[in-house]
Formats: sequence, structure tokens, C-alpha cells
Amino acid sequence: MSLLIRGGTVINADARKRADVYVEGGIIKAVGENLDVPSGAEVIDAGGQYVMPGGIDPHTHMQLPFMGTVASEDFYTGTAAGLAGGTTMIIDFVIPSPQEPLMEAYKTWRGWAEKACADYSFHVAVTWWGDGVAEDMGRLVNEEGINSFKHFMAYKGAIMAEDEVLYNSFTRARELGAIVTAHAENGELVFQLQKKLMEAGMTGPEAHPLSRPPAAEGEAANRAARLAEVIDVPLYLVHVSTKDALDEIIRARLAGQRVYGEALAGHLLIDDSVYKHPDFEYAAAHVMSPPFREKHHQEALWKGLQSGNLQTTATDHCCFCADQKAMGKDDFTKIPNGTAGVEDRLAVLWTHGVRTGKLTMEEFVGATSANAARIFNIYPRKGRIAEGADADIVVWDPEATKTISAKTHKQNVDFNIFEGMEVTGLASHTISQGRVRYKNGELFTNKGDGRFIKRPAFKR
Amino acid sequence: MSLLIRGGTVINADARKRADVYVEGGIIKAVGENLDVPSGAEVIDAGGQYVMPGGIDPHTHMQLPFMGTVASEDFYTGTAAGLAGGTTMIIDFVIPSPQEPLMEAYKTWRGWAEKACADYSFHVAVTWWGDGVAEDMGRLVNEEGINSFKHFMAYKGAIMAEDEVLYNSFTRARELGAIVTAHAENGELVFQLQKKLMEAGMTGPEAHPLSRPPAAEGEAANRAARLAEVIDVPLYLVHVSTKDALDEIIRARLAGQRVYGEALAGHLLIDDSVYKHPDFEYAAAHVMSPPFREKHHQEALWKGLQSGNLQTTATDHCCFCADQKAMGKDDFTKIPNGTAGVEDRLAVLWTHGVRTGKLTMEEFVGATSANAARIFNIYPRKGRIAEGADADIVVWDPEATKTISAKTHKQNVDFNIFEGMEVTGLASHTISQGRVRYKNGELFTNKGDGRFIKRPAFKR
Amino acid sequence: MSLLIRGGTVINADARKRADVYVEGGIIKAVGENLDVPSGAEVIDAGGQYVMPGGIDPHTHMQLPFMGTVASEDFYTGTAAGLAGGTTMIIDFVIPSPQEPLMEAYKTWRGWAEKACADYSFHVAVTWWGDGVAEDMGRLVNEEGINSFKHFMAYKGAIMAEDEVLYNSFTRARELGAIVTAHAENGELVFQLQKKLMEAGMTGPEAHPLSRPPAAEGEAANRAARLAEVIDVPLYLVHVSTKDALDEIIRARLAGQRVYGEALAGHLLIDDSVYKHPDFEYAAAHVMSPPFREKHHQEALWKGLQSGNLQTTATDHCCFCADQKAMGKDDFTKIPNGTAGVEDRLAVLWTHGVRTGKLTMEEFVGATSANAARIFNIYPRKGRIAEGADADIVVWDPEATKTISAKTHKQNVDFNIFEGMEVTGLASHTISQGRVRYKNGELFTNKGDGRFIKRPAFKR
Amino acid sequence: MSLLIRGGTVINADARKRADVYVEGGIIKAVGENLDVPSGAEVIDAGGQYVMPGGIDPHTHMQLPFMGTVASEDFYTGTAAGLAGGTTMIIDFVIPSPQEPLMEAYKTWRGWAEKACADYSFHVAVTWWGDGVAEDMGRLVNEEGINSFKHFMAYKGAIMAEDEVLYNSFTRARELGAIVTAHAENGELVFQLQKKLMEAGMTGPEAHPLSRPPAAEGEAANRAARLAEVIDVPLYLVHVSTKDALDEIIRARLAGQRVYGEALAGHLLIDDSVYKHPDFEYAAAHVMSPPFREKHHQEALWKGLQSGNLQTTATDHCCFCADQKAMGKDDFTKIPNGTAGVEDRLAVLWTHGVRTGKLTMEEFVGATSANAARIFNIYPRKGRIAEGADADIVVWDPEATKTISAKTHKQNVDFNIFEGMEVTGLASHTISQGRVRYKNGELFTNKGDGRFIKRPAFKR
Ligand SMILES: [Zn+2]
Ligand SMILES: [Zn+2]
Ligand SMILES: [Zn+2]
Ligand SMILES: [Zn+2]
Ligand SMILES: [Zn+2]
Ligand SMILES: [Zn+2]
Ligand SMILES: [Zn+2]
Ligand SMILES: [Zn+2]
Repeated sequence: MSLLIRGGTVINADARKRADVYVEGGIIKAVGENLDVPSGAEVIDAGGQYVMPGGIDPHTHMQLPFMGTVASEDFYTGTAAGLAGGTTMIIDFVIPSPQEPLMEAYKTWRGWAEKACADYSFHVAVTWWGDGVAEDMGRLVNEEGINSFKHFMAYKGAIMAEDEVLYNSFTRARELGAIVTAHAENGELVFQLQKKLMEAGMTGPEAHPLSRPPAAEGEAANRAARLAEVIDVPLYLVHVSTKDALDEIIRARLAGQRVYGEALAGHLLIDDSVYKHPDFEYAAAHVMSPPFREKHHQEALWKGLQSGNLQTTATDHCCFCADQKAMGKDDFTKIPNGTAGVEDRLAVLWTHGVRTGKLTMEEFVGATSANAARIFNIYPRKGRIAEGADADIVVWDPEATKTISAKTHKQNVDFNIFEGMEVTGLASHTISQGRVRYKNGELFTNKGDGRFIKRPAFKR
Repeated sequence: MSLLIRGGTVINADARKRADVYVEGGIIKAVGENLDVPSGAEVIDAGGQYVMPGGIDPHTHMQLPFMGTVASEDFYTGTAAGLAGGTTMIIDFVIPSPQEPLMEAYKTWRGWAEKACADYSFHVAVTWWGDGVAEDMGRLVNEEGINSFKHFMAYKGAIMAEDEVLYNSFTRARELGAIVTAHAENGELVFQLQKKLMEAGMTGPEAHPLSRPPAAEGEAANRAARLAEVIDVPLYLVHVSTKDALDEIIRARLAGQRVYGEALAGHLLIDDSVYKHPDFEYAAAHVMSPPFREKHHQEALWKGLQSGNLQTTATDHCCFCADQKAMGKDDFTKIPNGTAGVEDRLAVLWTHGVRTGKLTMEEFVGATSANAARIFNIYPRKGRIAEGADADIVVWDPEATKTISAKTHKQNVDFNIFEGMEVTGLASHTISQGRVRYKNGELFTNKGDGRFIKRPAFKR
Repeated sequence: MSLLIRGGTVINADARKRADVYVEGGIIKAVGENLDVPSGAEVIDAGGQYVMPGGIDPHTHMQLPFMGTVASEDFYTGTAAGLAGGTTMIIDFVIPSPQEPLMEAYKTWRGWAEKACADYSFHVAVTWWGDGVAEDMGRLVNEEGINSFKHFMAYKGAIMAEDEVLYNSFTRARELGAIVTAHAENGELVFQLQKKLMEAGMTGPEAHPLSRPPAAEGEAANRAARLAEVIDVPLYLVHVSTKDALDEIIRARLAGQRVYGEALAGHLLIDDSVYKHPDFEYAAAHVMSPPFREKHHQEALWKGLQSGNLQTTATDHCCFCADQKAMGKDDFTKIPNGTAGVEDRLAVLWTHGVRTGKLTMEEFVGATSANAARIFNIYPRKGRIAEGADADIVVWDPEATKTISAKTHKQNVDFNIFEGMEVTGLASHTISQGRVRYKNGELFTNKGDGRFIKRPAFKR
Repeated sequence: MSLLIRGGTVINADARKRADVYVEGGIIKAVGENLDVPSGAEVIDAGGQYVMPGGIDPHTHMQLPFMGTVASEDFYTGTAAGLAGGTTMIIDFVIPSPQEPLMEAYKTWRGWAEKACADYSFHVAVTWWGDGVAEDMGRLVNEEGINSFKHFMAYKGAIMAEDEVLYNSFTRARELGAIVTAHAENGELVFQLQKKLMEAGMTGPEAHPLSRPPAAEGEAANRAARLAEVIDVPLYLVHVSTKDALDEIIRARLAGQRVYGEALAGHLLIDDSVYKHPDFEYAAAHVMSPPFREKHHQEALWKGLQSGNLQTTATDHCCFCADQKAMGKDDFTKIPNGTAGVEDRLAVLWTHGVRTGKLTMEEFVGATSANAARIFNIYPRKGRIAEGADADIVVWDPEATKTISAKTHKQNVDFNIFEGMEVTGLASHTISQGRVRYKNGELFTNKGDGRFIKRPAFKR
């Protein structure tokens, strides 16, 4: 099975050039002008289009059991929706319950993920500390190809990691050559504010952002960064949603620390006015954590991407339908947290980032795939159009347009936070492992075609 | 009993002028040029000298039971040493054991303090949360004249306040019109680093600063400030020793928050090389928390005072003699934490602050008395030379010199961290409640002359 | 002539207290509770009111010859309008033409000002360098009581001071113990952008803010601060209108420099949308430099006042009527620059500062009088309610309201930038030199009652 | 002529891998493991070594006529010395005299450079503005392959560009798709301080740093960045030597601007104590502008490289021998400014950057070649080991050591600022245009082998 992408402009994170791309056996075999290729290759005419590494979404939660329900999107539908949007790999999360052995949870998630139709990996959350955790972290890194551990600083009473857990896990990660990641919100503060708001009779979604103020995120971002500084381990903050947290990343980076930050497509584009919508269903559909923020935070996040202080974009794709969201009808703290986006990220970022001049095309590739691949140590196998790399490729038509809508999206959820947004710039073809899996609106996927991708430990 | 201070220059925090000061009944009755006063007044010739508000040391620990011993300086000797150095009031700390009712501890400390020979007040620490704490805080504010509550973010396993305690106490303080204060160091981190260092065989005082890195202070400073931001309560950080913590204060202040910071005379002048001294006794004598820091932090603290981002100076006066310090001979974590200074603060700050041009004389008064009086709401009764104010006055001879030494100081401890420092600028007379209590090297004090000073709640 | 202000609350920049104020011979003779005063004193009942130092407006331009016309407000009408708003002193500007001897210009302005009905002083601008300038600066400081020199970094081709002038003048000011002040905008950049905009056919007032971008102010603020740093002279930046300039002040202050900043009432409240108004007359009436800015700059200025990085408020009161503004009908660069406000500053700042909780009443006094008095070295003669101070006093009714309007204001100009703003908090009485000059809407002024106030050099 | 580099580890700015590199016709033809290559290729055994892009020094001044003399290093000896240190390309400067047409100066420099033995390019300085300058800039960009223009903000009375020149040149550069660069020091301030110091009798080299304080650099950096912000043109600051200037770059970058900064090897390692050396010859040998700085600036520069706020390293290689330096024996302002380093940069940066853990090897490549290539738009032709790139390659032996000395260096100058420094990590082979030009201490160069490299304009 071979494939020639002809006549396009190849965009990598560091440069662009007119070049054909030849693929064989799931691997890019050649990148160059006027490639001579064996007959029989399928040919894609990429004239006037850009040929870029397929998107990597480093933050998704497919079929996550959470807050008493299970996310509606499974690993098959979720990776398929990703392919429809030009994303060829996800990094999802294994989230052990407190006291559950990490390896056990890991095996559960690996099982769930077998039906994926595009490549995937996992961050593993450290939600508790005790016998066996350090050992399991070791097995995960050394035997399973996991090099990143996640820590929830929020969700008190459930999966929140206190400083003691953070200290031990960060220390162990450092020994193993792994990177630590954190959901940075002060869980105690959120817990107290939720209680206070509920007691004050503010039970609706409009209370959600009030219970999670920017200061709660700034605090946790600083705490994680300070612990990482002392322990000397690289840190990656997921879903940075505020200037407050971004400023902490900048502070740490200026001091020479290796701290990275991820922006969600949603946080870049949507503000907190959605929570004031009179329709519960609409407002609840936007409930995620951290919440959408006041507009000036969005400006800050864009500048974070421009200045390189935020390196990646993701979606925190975690789908709950209206009937699930309704669980929190009388208590906003019970609304399952999560929104979708794995399908829309690239188009949204191209439209609002590249077309506005905020980001160059090279920076777009950095922010959608290459930087995640580098930070999570699968570069240049992933995240680069180059000889020898996996043939995960998106052919991007910069002039194609559509209006995003839950009615037409491939995502298995009944709501789209970008509903009605007109985007310009869409995948015309998405190629995974050297095969065209999406073409002009149509998917060609098979359950189980996705592979688990091992990510080696970092050498210091 | 009346007193005339004649011919000096009165320095207040906002201005200076040539003026006589007339005192009667413990109160300043007149400030003006060529005052006509009743005959019979004692006259002090202040020609060529400065007449300033007596120092307020907002951070002392007289006869504190701590780490298995009791601080060697009691309320009598400590306030007397203060008078010798020009300090006429201290604010000490009531520190309840966990589960001990606040009112009970408060009464204990009030009892101990009865022997003081100069005025005093107390901050009360909130070291736990549970039944009765909120009520006791209310009584303390409304009936006892306590308007500040202290929180130890370090000392895990002892008096450390976790976020839950901080949240509840800050919230209650806000209701009551009180200010919250914090010892900002991440106690979990210190605990873990102590353990790690001891396990690595680093048992001596040189391990002390390693167990309390600047990042631990920066972290806690940020956390306290963030909680205060959300709860909307003013915050005062004691003994700011690092650029890290100062930067957090600046960040919060620039965002419009009311956050204040205190610098210790020791942190302004002494660096962490003392812990590398081969003599255990010498090194241990400097063990306090936060520790002395690398020199660049001292520069930052001075700039903090100059720019008004640090408002007060103090000493954290907490004396332990060599035999007490010896408790940690084989385990640096057992060295009682504390150093002296209540006697030396003004001379040290004048010498290194005013004489070097870093601070104006007005700023010196702000940093040694007026700002503390304002922040803790006893201004202008204290902290100002003005009609109607308490006659707590220091007559300052800017040309007097001495060499600081434990051999000659009045402090009841066998070590002086400023040993050998030549200072220029000394109290010639210290007047407390309108009486000369110190004059040219000699004390004239009586046990019990000091009064407990009520500090009213803040009106918002 | 004596006066008793009875039953009010005296607010100074450092504290407040219930007190009567007794005035005799233009001087405050006593401040205290239940004052016993000689019979015959006029009594003002200040019950429920605040007694504060009269406002000092450190930035006005009465009857300024500028851009081919003369400001409509003269020293009499202007100081009277100030009195009506609670302002008892102005500091105006002597602006020599290039090559005009400073002393000559100074005498001209002194002559114009003789008709003032409230006290006044002058900053003297250094608009050129050459023979006699250094000498005149010396005479002004040593003989005339001028301690501040102004520098225009904008207005190329007219009064702009290039770096060479700045260097020489700053150096001379330092020798003399004077403070330097600057209008910080990069005049070259403004000149070029004006040319470019006019060439592009953008001739209306909407081009005015485009010709003076925030970067032009940030640049000049930095340049002035850097020169002041090297020359070691205190610096005061007038009319700080942008976060850009404020950030430069903050940077310098954090480095230990003595740099001060002034916010105009207009810049605190009005944004740049006014320039897009279709009515030329309306838009042109707002033309001043620096222009009104995007809203986020206003938030920054308020935070600057809150954090103490901006110390004073002023108005840059400089009035041009519609027919004068019409000079720039076809060329926005010819619209005389200036807006009014000397009458409205206190009410506007009280309404939007104190009543919103942004500023305490003490901070209000600091920002409206005391800080200007300290920075320009006339404190506590001015800017404080205290025995011995000049009896320049405003009795402030915090509940009085009015709607600001050009129809009813006392200012001699046909437009008010605060038109329609409802303010709460107004002067009920304004006392100048111990006499009531304004009372409940009515003025009692005489031409020439104002005095020139000498401001002594600073001692270092 | 073909070449196989076998068994090394290829380091690019984004990743590393074990790979052979095959070169033919001056071009890299293949990069991969176990390459099969035509017989007859010269083989270099790179086992245990790193194969990296040859260094690009973006800042040199070969045979520059300056301050009444001519730099001792010419284009042949200079490029040869570069090759000896692993540097395969320089970007030098065309510096027209005021009023000299840019094209004329350009031709002069092109002539001088013909003898170079490695590739080169030129930045062209805009030292004046007037008829023909805009046109010549157009020709240079569109016909000659120059995409960067230099501006000296210092050297008043000689080549200093005032704001008017900066505005016009930046505006023109933007039109043309060129980048602007600046030597950022406030020339007026330097001029005045030089005069003041000379008048005060401080005539020796110790006055040199005093005449060019950090504030002078911070000021100019801000001014250049502000102008670039308004004009919307990318800016590159050469030889950033202070935290002051770096902070301005950071500020601009955080605001979304495209501002870049260059650190010199000398500024990273040497402090200003050299100017206090009693030996004039030693001190004068270090005279360059900006001068070497206090140590804390060096720490800041390293952190700037680590955080990506400084992107490139260079040398400002500009050689004057002792007899030339002696021209300033009695007047430090007449000491020809300049120091050498083109030969030592890579070894110094590897030793102090990579071996200390400050920089990864990938970051080293970024800082020594790839980033300069990207910023000046010759990437990936230069600055990357990849198929199709120019075969400018350094084979780097990370364990090789030497002691730097003027006695043994290849540079044509009698002094080395790194004299006595032991470095670990040296070029074993340097390959230019596919030929080994340096091997284990020996050069194999020919005059004129170097080529002028056109750098295309940027597309926006
Ligand atoms: Zn999360
Ligand atoms: Zn998540
Ligand atoms: Zn403490
Ligand atoms: Zn303490
Ligand atoms: Zn102005
Ligand atoms: Zn003005
Ligand atoms: Zn230069
Ligand atoms: Zn140069």
C-alpha cells in the first residue's frame, strides 16, 4: 500500500517547502520535489493545499467514568471524530480510583482503547500514594512506554492529590525520566466555594465559574511549578485557562525551569458569558473545569501561544449529553464536567490563529502536533513530515469552509460549544498509518486499527 | 510627670520639622517650636538629634514554649532590651496547641506578659479548626482588642494550618474586620526535604537552608495571597526572606490587593554562608525559619522596602541559648528555631538603610513604627509624634556608635547574629508612656509597667 | 478672622478622626475634639461631613498660549472653578518658547497669575538648552521657589526636548535639588504618524489617538526613567494614560528609583470611543494629549493608584471652546489640545474611587492633595489638616449629588468631558487661606487673593 | 567529491538520532542509519561524536575600518578561524558612512569579502536617511539577497541613527519584508557620560563601562522595540548584554511582538572586573561596546537562552591588536572597540552551556546555527542536518579538550578574552560546502572558496 501526496506545500514546525510526500508501509519514505514513485501508488492531488503532520490531541477522555456517569464518546467514535478533523493521535488518561493499583487501572483503559481507529497513548494519573504506587510507576515507564503522570489538584474528596502525593509522585517521576502533568486548581478552595454557593442558593450553572475563580488556578499552577522546581522535574500544565496560570508558567520559564502549558481550543475562543444563559441545558453543556473565562484571559492565552510560553493545544474532549448534564439540574456541582472538541480543534485554531495573523503556519503545526510530540517524546516519529516518520498526515485545504454544528459533527455528543462558528481551513484528507481515513467529509475507519504508541522515558 | 524634649528634629513617616515635644501624663501634649511649658518638666536636650516614634516590633516571641524548650527571653527582659534599642512596643504571638481553645491560650499568654515593662499586644495563631474556634475569634476581636490572626503554613505535624484551616480562618477574619498574617513556607515540602536530608546523612545546620528553599516560601506566599484574594481579606506576610515571596506580594499588590510584607533585620543583613560555619554552635545559633538566604535576596528585600512593597521591619525575636540549640546536635531539625534582635533592629536599619541613602528618615520611621501601627490599627496613637499620641518616643543620636556584641547587649541570650557590627545611630533616650526608660546606656524599668494595648477591628 | 469647623471627621492621608478644626489668620490653629474657641469665630457645622485638605491640582494650564490660540480659562476664573470643586491650589506651567530665557517667561506667567483667587505655583518647562538656561534654573530654584522643571518629549518642531536637552536639564536639576517632570510621548513617532495619517486622508479627530499610540508613551516614559536613573534625579511623569507608561514607572520603582506618576481624572474615566463620534465638535472637544485610551488602560490606572505606583491625580486643565477647536476642522493636528476638569476632579474621584471601594478616604486625600504636596515639597503646609498648616480646607458632603454639565459648571469653557455624569460627594464649603470661598453652590472670591507659593529645593 | 560521516549522533535543533550523513556536491544527500553509499566516498568516523550543523556567527566585523584604524582580521583569516572552531558561515556588516550610498558601501564590502574561505552574508547598516536610501534598500532586498538592516543607536557624531532615521528605515524594511536589527545603546547618554568622565580625569579603560551603563542599553532596547511595535516590523537586537535589555525583549515578546535577541559568548562569560585591571593593555583589550557587565547580567543572559527569549549567540568578532588599542592610551573613548571570538564560540558555549546542564544539545544547535538561520531566512539550507541542506557540518568531539590561548588560536589578533579557559568539546572536523576544511587542529582552506549567500525577503 503506497501513497503519493503531490503538489502541496509541506509545513513543519520549523519551515515550509513545496514538496511531494511519498508513503509506504505506514511510513513516510520520501519528501521532495517531483518525486519519482513506483507505479501503483494512490495519488492525492494537494495542489494549493498544505501537507502537515496529523494533529495530536494530548488531552482527551474517551468513555471516561466520571461523576456517576460515563462519557458518551468511546475510543472508536472519538478517534474517528479526530480523524475527521485532521487529528491522528490522542493521548488519553488512565485515572485510577484512590487505592486502585495503577497497573490495574492501566489495563482497564488499555482494554477500552482497543477499538480505537487511530493511534493513542495514555497519561497515567497518580491519585493516591502508598504501597505499590512507586513500583507501578516504574513498570509503566520501563515496560509499558508511559512517560507522563497526571495529577489532579482539584476534585477534593475524589481524585485530588494533596502536596504529599505530589511530592512523592514528582520525585518518583524524576527518578524514572518521566514528565509530570497537572490539572491546576486549588481543590480545597473549589470545595469551599461550591459549598458556600450552594448554601447561598446558587444552584445553577452560573455558579460554576464562581466556584472556580482564576485565583484557584493561579494558586495551583504556582504550587505545582514550585514543587517541580525543588524536585527538578519537568512539568506540563494541562488546560491553562487564565492569565493567572499563564503568568506562573512564564515566571517559572524565565527562571530557567522546564515548564510547559496547554491551551484548549474552547478556552481560546469562548468566554464565561455562556454560564449566564437562561437555558439550563445550554449553560450546563458548557460546564467544564476550569470553566470558560472572561475575555481578557483569552487574549492572554493567544499571546501565550505567540510567545511560546504555551506550547500545545488540546481539547480535554470529554462528552456528556443533555440527559447526563441534567444530573446537576438542582446542583451545579453534580453537572458532569466536560465538553467536546477533538474534531474541531484544528479548524478553529487555523481560523482564529493563522488566518488572523496571530500564528504562522509553522507555529500552527507546533501547537497542534509537533510540540506535543516533543514534550511527550515521540518526535519526530509523530509531529513531523519527514522521511522515516509515521505517515500520520493531514492535507489541509486553507480555503474550505464549513459551519460547525452538533447536527453535522461526527462527535458522539448532542452539543457543540463552537455551534454556528464558520471556519475556513479544513482537512481534505486525513491519513493515519499511511492510509486515507478521511476524505472530503467521509470517514473510512475500522475499529481497532489504532495502535498504542509507547513513549520512551527521557534521558537526562 | 511632665517632660520636654527640646531642640530636636521631629521625624514622622510623612515629614520632618524642627520642634520641641511636650509630654504630660503619658501623652504627647504639644509639638512645636519654642514650646512654653509649665515649670517642673524634665527637659531632654535633643539638639542635633532626631525625635521619632518609638519602634514597634510587630513580631516577637518572648518565653515561647517551642520545640521542647522555652525561649530564654521573657516578657520583662525582652521589652527592656527593646527599650534599650529604642523600641517601645512589641506585638507577640499567642500560639495555641492544636485543639487548645484560642481563649485559653490567649489567657495563658496574657498572664505571661504581665511582667512586661513596655506596651505590647498579641497576634493570635489559628492552628486548627473546629468547634469554638470561630466563636473564640469573635470574642478576641470584639472583646479583647485582637485584630490579627496568624497562620503557620510550615511546621507539619505540629502547628501547620492546611488550606482548610486557612480558608475557614481567613473567612472568619474577614467577617470580623481582622487582618490575617502568615508564616509562608510550604510545610509539606520542608518536611519531605528534612526527611530526605537526614536520610542522606546531612544532619548538621548546613542542611537547614537546604530543607527550606526559596521556592517553599514563594509557594506559600502565593497560596496565602490567592486565598486572601478570593476571600477578600487583607494579608500580612511575616518575615519575608526571599525575592520569591516578595515577588508574590508585588504581584498581588499590583492587582489591587491589600497585601503587606515584613522584613526582618536579620534577613536584610545576613546571608546563608553562616550555616556552613564549621562550628556547630555558631551555625546553630543562626538557625531560624525561614533561614538566612543568598545575598541577592537581601538586595531584593531592600528594594522592597524602598518601593513600599514591604512596609514593616521586625525581628522574630525568639531566643535560644547554646545549650538549647545543642538539642539538635545530631539532627538539625531539632535545633530550636530562633534568633534575637529586638534590641538591635533600629540601629541596624539606620546604619544600613538611612546612612547608605537607601531609605529617607521618614521611610525609616514608616518601616520601624508607623506602618506597623497603621496596618495593625493603632495609629496614630502609636507610630506618630503628634499631639494626643502615646508618649512612646525615641531620641535618636545619629552620630553615636557602638559595636554590637552578645557580651554587652541587654538581650537575655548568649549570642548575637550582628556580633561585631559597628552601628552609627543609636537611641540616646527611650521614652515609654511619657517616662524615660532608657538613657545613654542605662535602663530604668519596672516589671509590669507595660500595658496590653487593644487593637480595634477594621471598619470596611 | 477666625473660623471653627465643628463636628466633622478629619481625613488626612494617614488616618481619620472625629475632630473640630479651628482656623485663625489663614492658619489652622487647632485640631481636636470639642475645641474651645474664642467667641466671634464663624462656625461651620460639618456634622456627617468630612474635613479634608483642599485639593491640589498639580497640572493646569490657565490662559496658555498654545497652537495659535489662548486657553479660555484665565487664572482668576480657573482658580475660582477649582474652589467650587474643593481645589485650593494649582500648580501651573511656565512654558518658554525655544530660545526664550526662562526668567523672562517666568515673569510673564507670574504677571498673568496675579489675578488668581487661590494659591498657585509653577513648574517651569525647559524647552531648549543653551547659554543662560542653567543659570536661570539656578535663580528659579534658589531665589524664586521653583523646585520642578518640566520637559515635553512630544511636540516636535515646537517645544520638544531632545535627549541632549533632557540630559543637561536633568543634570542641572539634580545639582539644584529640584525634581524633573515629563510629558512622556515620543515626539518623533507622533510627528511621523500624524504625517502618515494626514497623507492617508485621515484628517478628523478619529485620527488623533492613532497618531499617539500607547507605545509612544511607553517609550518616552522608559527613556525619561532611564535618564533619571543614570543621572540619579527624582522623576515625575505627568498624565500617565497607559498601562505601558505605568509599567515603566513600576519597573523603575521596583529597582529602587524615585519615580512618580500622575493620573488625570479624564484618563481614569473616559475611553477612546469619544474620538469616533460623528460630530466633529464633540470629538474635537476631547482632543488632548495623551488621548483617552482603550478601557483596559483605565483599569490599569486605577490599580496604579491602589498600589501606590501612581501617587497623584490632576486634570491638565486647558480649555479651548468650540470655535477654537474648529481650527482643526480639516486637520486634526491643528485642533488645540486640551480639556477642562479642575472643578470636577474631586467629585469624580470620590464617586468612582471611594464609593466603589477602590480607594479609602485616606488614599483619596493622598491622591488629591497630600502626595502632590509631598512630591513638590510644600507638605505639610499644604495637603494636611494639622496645626500650623495653611487653612486650605474642603468640607465634603459625601451624600450630596449633582449631574456634571457644561451648562452649570463654573469653568470658562463650553464643554465638559464628564457631561451627564452623576456624582455623589461634593464640597459643601471650600476654605482658602482661612476664608470660605465657596459654599453650597456659591463662590465668594476676589481677584488677586491667591498667593504665589514658594516651593523650596529638596535636601538630599 | 563525496563524503560519508559514519556512526555519529546527528543533533538538530528539534531532535537527535543515530545516523550516518552522506554528502555529495556540497549538499547533504542522505541522513539515516547504515547508509549504503557509493564507493570512493571519503569516510569520517564519527563514533562517539555529534554531527551538527556548522555554526553560524550572525555578528562579525572582518577588516572593519573603525575609529581610525582597521580590524586586524580579514575575511580570509576570519572565516578560516571560524572553520577551526566549527563555524561555517558568518553574517558580517556593511556600514556606510553617513551620506554614502548604501549600494556603494555594499559593493565595497562585497569586494573585501571575496577572499573568504567559508560562506558569508551581510547585514547592511542604515546610518543616515535621505535621497536614495529607500531605493537602495529596495535593490538590496530585491536584487542582492539582503533581508536585514542594522541600526546603530550609539556612536553619536558618527554612525548613530536618530529616531527619524529609525522610523524611516523600519518603515521601509517592513514594506520590503526585511528584518531590522539594532545596536541598542542610547548614544546621547554615552556621549555625555564620556565627556563627563574625561572631564573628571577618568581617562582609562575603567571608565569605559561607566560611560555605558546598563540603563543606556535598556533604554535603547525599549525604544527600538516600541518603534518596531508601532511600525509592525520584526526586530533583532544584537549583543544583548544586560538584564535591562533582556527584560525589554521579554516584555515585547509577551505582548506578542516578534523581537529576537542575540547573546555574545563574551557577555555570557566575562564580567566587568576586567576593566579594573591595572595593565592598560589587558583592560583595553576587553574594550568593546556594550562592555562586559556585572555578573548578575550573565546569569540573566543564560536564563534568556534557556527560556528562548534570546535565540542566537554570536561574537561581534572585531579584532584590534595591542598597538591599535594603544590609540586610546590617554583617552578611553579612543580605544578601538572590539574583541575576538569567532573561533571559540562553540567550544565556550558547549563547555558552559551544555556540560553544565543549562542547555540541551538541541538547544545548543538552535543557539549556534539553526535559530540564526531561521531568523535570517536561510533555513533549512543552513542550520540543519537534513537531505537537501548545504553540507556545512561540524563533527563534534564532546570529550576533546584544550586551553584557549592567543598563543595557539588561529585568529589574527594578539589577545584572547577567553585566555586560559579550559574547554571540553571541540570540533574534530569542520566541513564546508561538503569538504573537510578543518581536521584535528589543521586547516585546509583556500582563499575565495566562500560564497556570498543570498537571503530572501520574508513573506508575510
Ligand atoms: Zn482537568
Ligand atoms: Zn481533562
Ligand atoms: Zn515564622
Ligand atoms: Zn515568628
Ligand atoms: Zn502634556
Ligand atoms: Zn499639560
Ligand atoms: Zn554593536
Ligand atoms: Zn558589532
